[in-house]
Amino acid sequence: MSAHSDEQALEEGSSFAPKFDANGLIVCVTVEAATREVLMVAYMNQLALDKTIETGVAHYWSRSRQSLWRKGDTSGQVQKVVSLSVDCDQDALLLAVEPGGDGKACHTGRKSCFYRTLETEDGARRLVFRS
Amino acid sequence: MSAHSDEQALEEGSSFAPKFDANGLIVCVTVEAATREVLMVAYMNQLALDKTIETGVAHYWSRSRQSLWRKGDTSGQVQKVVSLSVDCDQDALLLAVEPGGDGKACHTGRKSCFYRTLETEDGARRLVFRS
Repeated sequence: MSAHSDEQALEEGSSFAPKFDANGLIVCVTVEAATREVLMVAYMNQLALDKTIETGVAHYWSRSRQSLWRKGDTSGQVQKVVSLSVDCDQDALLLAVEPGGDGKACHTGRKSCFYRTLETEDGARRLVFRS
Repeated sequence: MSAHSDEQALEEGSSFAPKFDANGLIVCVTVEAATREVLMVAYMNQLALDKTIETGVAHYWSRSRQSLWRKGDTSGQVQKVVSLSVDCDQDALLLAVEPGGDGKACHTGRKSCFYRTLETEDGARRLVFRS
């Protein structure tokens, strides 16, 4: 196939062909299905993706621990998959989940990992807590 | 500082200290501010991040073209920044924007890049268009 028809198939086809990077990983944005709030950004390798699809529960690849990570194994914050989407060029995943346990996703004890927002004043940058 | 106090400062401090990867990039999830819909996932380097903060308009780093990319320069789909958040360990950004032009973000002509969702049947995987 030409580069163009490859791209066409990737973007407009029904084949699920996630593109893993040089480290064998694909980025995954996880949102709460009910509110669409972005909870976290993590990574999956082929194994984590397969486990997620087969079990219906989010699995990630921990880059720091270099191991498969079933979200919630220690925290109880298991994430039940509601839907899994892929972007146009299939190098990013969007996972909509029902969070279990206390409903939180962040290891700091917050619902979302994105709890700080940038503010600038006279060019100085600082983070402000929003939750 | 100890590793623990470093981590504490990174996660609980007000210092904006985005962690760029080995390629000098940080992943950015861009959502529509009004609806919180995830529009796209892209990457920023230090330059793109600085331009985004200084101009109030989303700039990314194109990995395929290896160049700074002011979103909307060719499409008119300029993204006005409403807020910029960072995750707990500061290796991912969340940008909330007001999309300009026709309000779309994806180069395929769709509002969001995440227009296909995975379905499985008897273990077979295929993508279904949802928009």
